[in-house]
Amino acid sequence: MKIGVGILGFGTVGAGVADGLLRNRETFSQRLGTDVELKKIADLDITTDRGVKTPDGTLTTDAMSVIRDPEIQIVAELIGGTGIAKKFILEAIAAGKHVVTANKALLAESGAEIFEAAGKAGVDVYFGASVGGGIPVVRVLREGLAGNEIERIDGILNGTCNYILTRMAREKLPFSATLADAQRLGYAEADPSLDIDGWDTAHKAVLLASLAYGFFVPKSALRVEGIRNLSAVDVQYADRLGYCIKLLARIARQGDGIEVDVRPTLVPAGHMLASVQGVFNAVMVHGDLSGDILLYGKGAGREPTASTVIGDIGDIARNIAGGGARYRRAIYTGNAGKLSVKDPGGIKSEFYIRLMVADAPGTFGRFGTIFGKHNVSIRTATSLPFLRGEEMDETIPVVVETHPALSGDLSAALEEIERSGVVRCKPVSMRII
Amino acid sequence: MKIGVGILGFGTVGAGVADGLLRNRETFSQRLGTDVELKKIADLDITTDRGVKTPDGTLTTDAMSVIRDPEIQIVAELIGGTGIAKKFILEAIAAGKHVVTANKALLAESGAEIFEAAGKAGVDVYFGASVGGGIPVVRVLREGLAGNEIERIDGILNGTCNYILTRMAREKLPFSATLADAQRLGYAEADPSLDIDGWDTAHKAVLLASLAYGFFVPKSALRVEGIRNLSAVDVQYADRLGYCIKLLARIARQGDGIEVDVRPTLVPAGHMLASVQGVFNAVMVHGDLSGDILLYGKGAGREPTASTVIGDIGDIARNIAGGGARYRRAIYTGNAGKLSVKDPGGIKSEFYIRLMVADAPGTFGRFGTIFGKHNVSIRTATSLPFLRGEEMDETIPVVVETHPALSGDLSAALEEIERSGVVRCKPVSMRII
Repeated sequence: MKIGVGILGFGTVGAGVADGLLRNRETFSQRLGTDVELKKIADLDITTDRGVKTPDGTLTTDAMSVIRDPEIQIVAELIGGTGIAKKFILEAIAAGKHVVTANKALLAESGAEIFEAAGKAGVDVYFGASVGGGIPVVRVLREGLAGNEIERIDGILNGTCNYILTRMAREKLPFSATLADAQRLGYAEADPSLDIDGWDTAHKAVLLASLAYGFFVPKSALRVEGIRNLSAVDVQYADRLGYCIKLLARIARQGDGIEVDVRPTLVPAGHMLASVQGVFNAVMVHGDLSGDILLYGKGAGREPTASTVIGDIGDIARNIAGGGARYRRAIYTGNAGKLSVKDPGGIKSEFYIRLMVADAPGTFGRFGTIFGKHNVSIRTATSLPFLRGEEMDETIPVVVETHPALSGDLSAALEEIERSGVVRCKPVSMRII
Repeated sequence: MKIGVGILGFGTVGAGVADGLLRNRETFSQRLGTDVELKKIADLDITTDRGVKTPDGTLTTDAMSVIRDPEIQIVAELIGGTGIAKKFILEAIAAGKHVVTANKALLAESGAEIFEAAGKAGVDVYFGASVGGGIPVVRVLREGLAGNEIERIDGILNGTCNYILTRMAREKLPFSATLADAQRLGYAEADPSLDIDGWDTAHKAVLLASLAYGFFVPKSALRVEGIRNLSAVDVQYADRLGYCIKLLARIARQGDGIEVDVRPTLVPAGHMLASVQGVFNAVMVHGDLSGDILLYGKGAGREPTASTVIGDIGDIARNIAGGGARYRRAIYTGNAGKLSVKDPGGIKSEFYIRLMVADAPGTFGRFGTIFGKHNVSIRTATSLPFLRGEEMDETIPVVVETHPALSGDLSAALEEIERSGVVRCKPVSMRII
């Protein structure tokens, strides 16, 4: 049996998938017990050399000719973006094709619509490469951990941010200089906003939440904070307290609500997530049966992303070769309207806080009293020396670690501390895991 | 649609699977889009309380009544061992049932026979929990990385050994005292041989090799060395050189042959595998597309193992609900007779060597010359102080790190060094990754 694959989009990932399918065809087909053949690749530009030797007649500028080809059963959408990619995915579904995509932005925005269309048409939409690149986290959540209640997921899901944070910590560099360097070295885009403001991570968090809890989190319910305003001072103070700072997506069930947020977070140095350096990504999942599971690898790039796309193609090929009439690895979205995103103020966590306070007797008593009034219990409070270049007259930095406290209580305490005049500038606060 | 599950063996894992299936049934069935019902559990002892409230009529002492039940499509073999478990698996396959098992010893010994029978009967045999307990490594190798040529796999696959090694390193304890403590605390069996001599790890390595390379490695071709003879001295010297010692299974392709071995190995402190502490397990896979991927979690225990068994049950249930005539997630074993295990002497690696040499001028020259003669190139050679209690008169310990060298060349060099009288006792050597 031969199963035909069509690719839409011959960019970095499309070329990687084509290359992998051609290069490893024999091993791949042996493992599946069925032959998978790359039939067609559509792109507006079919003249630029992508370093892949495609068989004659494979390239076309007409995406619809790929979608309508009766010898193609699986369409890989690797165009990206939320425009034409959506149209092509829906056309492919309507034509009875199974779809593989790496398009996180589109699925985060229109996933419910796309999965509903696929369900009606009896085809599958696989999207492994849309979260974590080469890391098999989508597959593991959907299948391996299917029997678990997922208690929480913590993910380092953006290589650009993790690269910047790693260098800020190792070399004591400020954010702006590190970003500029990352751009020069090709680890950050010319316009880095999607990465550094946390939205790339947030799109992935939406997909992980849908796998864990069966509904799509609306964009308006997301709390997203990037690393653009992260101070080098806090990176160094965190280090002294035994933490490193990571941009973490957290998806968790707390009581009857779901927490989904993205923000800079302090991770204890001994934690597996603290070992994730540079452009690598990792996801820690805690299932009620499995306990902690960590999945680590390259979260982006031509070949790692292609690895996952091809894995998805293989799974669909196995389904087709098995002769099934319908395929059942689409995700469950039946909790829409039943589960909801928790009010951020009601989320409990430990916190790191930096206060720039007056260097005078009674200061600890003043902010300590205000924290206490708002039910924020202090675990440690330490005045630290200024780092070079950060000095302010008659002011000292004090770093506080709290016991678990409600985020709403913390906000109220920090507002009162600011109003009270005990601090010289706005307090900094970050979650600790 | 309702899919019936029968369990054979109501021990630790069987009880965990029953508990998980009953407890999380609603979430599990929603995710699958089909209802999975635990129908029967067979065990010779059905009176002991396992802490699971099973519905009336579920328990039976007659395994064949489970296998023959027309309402059961999936049989989970959780008896273990290579005796009756094999008979029941083959009977279940013959009765047209899909099988899920966690039985690594049986599959390492009779996997080829069992998969052949399953292929003929058109049923699947899933065995996710036989390697890595709660870690989804089998699924990821079989499916997620199906499009990759697997270059190598390094696995910490035995929690007992990793627990002992972690404590030996942290507390500078000798092996025997740590083992006794592990037994007292329930982390090691009364007869710990299968774990500490490396054979439990080796069974798992055989299964990982079959997934990566498509053939079952015969037991006679395995090189297995456990941690029973590991000296606390080497743990501490390794630490000084910036390594920790782990019992690693390595499965790799080197040229035209496959390397499969299990032995104590030095891992650089910054490597993700070095962060794996205590009873946790982890597997690092390097695919030609994916690059390095690490999977980490609990490698044993009632609930983590149940998590993976239930994940496998879910996957089969999806296949059945999809209406397929044949199922295609069995592993490919078509390379039997085509690929073979490489001669150990031909394997290239860096090495750690400890020599107890005469404290006299010219010693470095003598062993250095012999290494050179056998093409073993030294990267560092350092004489280290004795650790307390290890002193020998007129002798000093010298620790050598080599550049990549052939294992056969190293053995020849060490033999000559021993014969030459330059050492006072047998040299110790371990692989470095």
